[in-house]
Amino acid sequence: MSVTNSAGRTLPETIAGEHYKPFKKAHKNNCDSKVISLKKALKKADLKDGQTISFHHQLRNGDYVVNHTLDVIRDLEIKNLRLAQTALFPIHKPVIDHIKEGTISRIEGSINGTVGDYVSKNPLPYPVVLRSHGGRWAAVKNDELHIDVAIIAASAADNRGNCTGLIGKSAFGPICYSQVDAMHADHVIVVTDNLVDRPCGFQEITEEYVDHVVQMDQIGNPKDIVSGSLKVTNNPQKLHIARQCINLMSALDLIKDGLIFQAGAGGISLAALQYLDKKLEENNVVAACETGGFTKFIAEMHRKGLVKNAYGLQCFDVESIKYIAENRRLITDIGHYADPSSKGRFLDGLHATMLGATEVDTNFNVNVNTHSDGRLLHGIGGHQDSAAGANLTMITVPIYRKTIPVIRDAVTTITTPGDIIDAIVTDQGVAINPNRTDLLDKLQGNNDVNIVSIESLKEMADKETGGPPQVDFGDDIIGITKWRNGELLDVIYSVKE
Amino acid sequence: MSVTNSAGRTLPETIAGEHYKPFKKAHKNNCDSKVISLKKALKKADLKDGQTISFHHQLRNGDYVVNHTLDVIRDLEIKNLRLAQTALFPIHKPVIDHIKEGTISRIEGSINGTVGDYVSKNPLPYPVVLRSHGGRWAAVKNDELHIDVAIIAASAADNRGNCTGLIGKSAFGPICYSQVDAMHADHVIVVTDNLVDRPCGFQEITEEYVDHVVQMDQIGNPKDIVSGSLKVTNNPQKLHIARQCINLMSALDLIKDGLIFQAGAGGISLAALQYLDKKLEENNVVAACETGGFTKFIAEMHRKGLVKNAYGLQCFDVESIKYIAENRRLITDIGHYADPSSKGRFLDGLHATMLGATEVDTNFNVNVNTHSDGRLLHGIGGHQDSAAGANLTMITVPIYRKTIPVIRDAVTTITTPGDIIDAIVTDQGVAINPNRTDLLDKLQGNNDVNIVSIESLKEMADKETGGPPQVDFGDDIIGITKWRNGELLDVIYSVKE
Repeated sequence: MSVTNSAGRTLPETIAGEHYKPFKKAHKNNCDSKVISLKKALKKADLKDGQTISFHHQLRNGDYVVNHTLDVIRDLEIKNLRLAQTALFPIHKPVIDHIKEGTISRIEGSINGTVGDYVSKNPLPYPVVLRSHGGRWAAVKNDELHIDVAIIAASAADNRGNCTGLIGKSAFGPICYSQVDAMHADHVIVVTDNLVDRPCGFQEITEEYVDHVVQMDQIGNPKDIVSGSLKVTNNPQKLHIARQCINLMSALDLIKDGLIFQAGAGGISLAALQYLDKKLEENNVVAACETGGFTKFIAEMHRKGLVKNAYGLQCFDVESIKYIAENRRLITDIGHYADPSSKGRFLDGLHATMLGATEVDTNFNVNVNTHSDGRLLHGIGGHQDSAAGANLTMITVPIYRKTIPVIRDAVTTITTPGDIIDAIVTDQGVAINPNRTDLLDKLQGNNDVNIVSIESLKEMADKETGGPPQVDFGDDIIGITKWRNGELLDVIYSVKE
Repeated sequence: MSVTNSAGRTLPETIAGEHYKPFKKAHKNNCDSKVISLKKALKKADLKDGQTISFHHQLRNGDYVVNHTLDVIRDLEIKNLRLAQTALFPIHKPVIDHIKEGTISRIEGSINGTVGDYVSKNPLPYPVVLRSHGGRWAAVKNDELHIDVAIIAASAADNRGNCTGLIGKSAFGPICYSQVDAMHADHVIVVTDNLVDRPCGFQEITEEYVDHVVQMDQIGNPKDIVSGSLKVTNNPQKLHIARQCINLMSALDLIKDGLIFQAGAGGISLAALQYLDKKLEENNVVAACETGGFTKFIAEMHRKGLVKNAYGLQCFDVESIKYIAENRRLITDIGHYADPSSKGRFLDGLHATMLGATEVDTNFNVNVNTHSDGRLLHGIGGHQDSAAGANLTMITVPIYRKTIPVIRDAVTTITTPGDIIDAIVTDQGVAINPNRTDLLDKLQGNNDVNIVSIESLKEMADKETGGPPQVDFGDDIIGITKWRNGELLDVIYSVKE
């Protein structure tokens, strides 16, 4: 059988056994502006009761986008949404009202502070699901966490949706968490306070993924988005722990050409970076790559040639945003960083990483989510991912804080299993995981690192504090921690007011 | 029911009605080198008879990777493969032997020259499927064209698969065609002649998508990969056509701030760029963006600030590769350029584009695939994509070549339907598509462009040449052209030797 198509050609419908649809019509592409109001965008996205809406957290405690969006959704009388943000901060306290009013009934994502305190005492119908950065990426990619509408804050965007976090008054660093949302959400809305001429000069997310662009006067408060200028701690305890990390790396002969390491933007990490910087310079060593939180300290090491490459993800100060915009090739995304379901992450084979904790137990299990009073006050971040990637995973903690022991028999919540934690670096010595006999062998006879047992650290902590406080948990499961592949690692119980 | 997981926690299996798999084991990530031989990589990929293997064409007529890979596959005695390259060149003549020996029985991708001549005379069991750049991207993304094994040539790669085309002795420009293959193929093999320390300093494709890395002495012949230095034509006929294009854009008042245009690397395009460059400078105008083939001419316009932004895809000379490596933010991929199934392409709303043709007919249909003797000698490239994206699609052709008329009653093969072709710019005047009454209105009374009817151009061409030659077609369909959305646009018949 033949059919005449719209180009006037009479062609067979089947060729070599395969059926072909005839050509119907060629159009010029639609190139209308995608800029509309948030209300209209949410209506066009057909956001419905019970659906899932996502946000990234890169505006941190300066973010105005989550609160504003939820206000508009409340006005639209949409109920029982699942909030799938990458993280909430104290500024998102109004989420509590949206929970009370029934707009939000479910949260899957990190929570830092206020909302976590509320949820710990007032369980939602479903537990808060905590995933690592890489775990969340995989969950969205593999449709374990299906996003109906993704809201992506951008510090600059053009009217077709090309957007960035690198320029503009509300610059926050490269958008690095939302690419997976953009690629997999049914509907994608970019929100910006800086509509620029097309094409936007930087584009971490491109127009191919964007349905609508929404303008806001201000997407956030710059002073709470990034630090004006990060300062290294001068707390002697933290400086001591930082120095111990570098001494440990040195004793293990890691500080040599080709070193790949991760350090965050926390006080101990920044101090450790300064010591490392000095050591690299003294020993005339060039590191291969730095990953993790991007700061002016990393930028400076890269500029000086002490580290050949860097991967830029979250930026924590204005200097690092400027540096990475000028060195665009350094930017990557969270999928490349940590996706456990991919064929390889840049974390794989990391020589060393420094991570924090609220608690560590004698099985080397680490808690970063709950405080010792049981309240859910932090997300997982890249903790699991980095621990699984690094050959030397160091947890940097004091043995106690105020009157609370950090080293204990059992952590309140397991965030990262002890099997992949290699060293607990404390103010009272360094405990090496007994399963790392290779490290223990290498450290025999060294004088720079005070190797102690985890049990002795626990005893010291108990002695100083009188042991962990008793917590009066409720029966409700208010949250769960997932391992990177989606398996259930632990549950978090409610606490009484 | 509760179960004790491997972290020692006894947890319910079901929480709030949802079932959770218990945590089993945390491992450190595997970070072994992915470098193995091509033979081993193909075996591990479990390439089987009848499967599909893909390549990009960015090494052009200097490519050694396709031939080498097919030789290894022949030695492995794998048969009846579907070859899904983005394009073949004369250097791929050995593909003919692989067809004769049964290694290849099907081709989906562009063919330039030798292999096309062979296939035109010796039909394969299945027609060659020709798709535009954007159409191919969509077909792979949407699994119309499923790739079992993607082979990706890289001029530098590290041992985990991060790779680039920007550096090294065989540099060819950013890898921009293969990202979709990397993301969707079952198995991905990077082939390089330049294994660098991890992390590779540029990464158009990252390790998350790569199964294996293969080393070759030489992936291609640099002098046939890119031009040492492109030269602008001094052919007066081509210069005239180029000037007419710029005059037409000028008469339509397109040469003003914010202009977004596309020009290729062909002779007429390069000449037109020179005229445009001059006009921008004279009129103190800044274009918003240049797209399409990247050359030193575009780089120079960008450096001078005559064009604010550019999108870098294929690079055609060594200077442009250097420029784009230093301006990494300009690089994008073919999906962003042209994917018809996405939410927006950067081609959408292009003010003007200049494209070539082998033939044009009086319905403004364009042929770029076959010659007037019927032989399949070219691919579609971005022709359909760019024509659909641009508000002013100009086809630049002489009215005849040697003794063959270019303007005719009917093209041999429809590559791009006349509905979206706006102007035929020839040495004998400019024909405007009658469906563009808006353009005709604007051009009334202008003196810079010689507006003529397409019929008069056809008559002139016939008069000079005696009309098109008769072609003795066979009955076999040796190829098909698809519209961007996969619909059947036209078929290509065999020709007799």
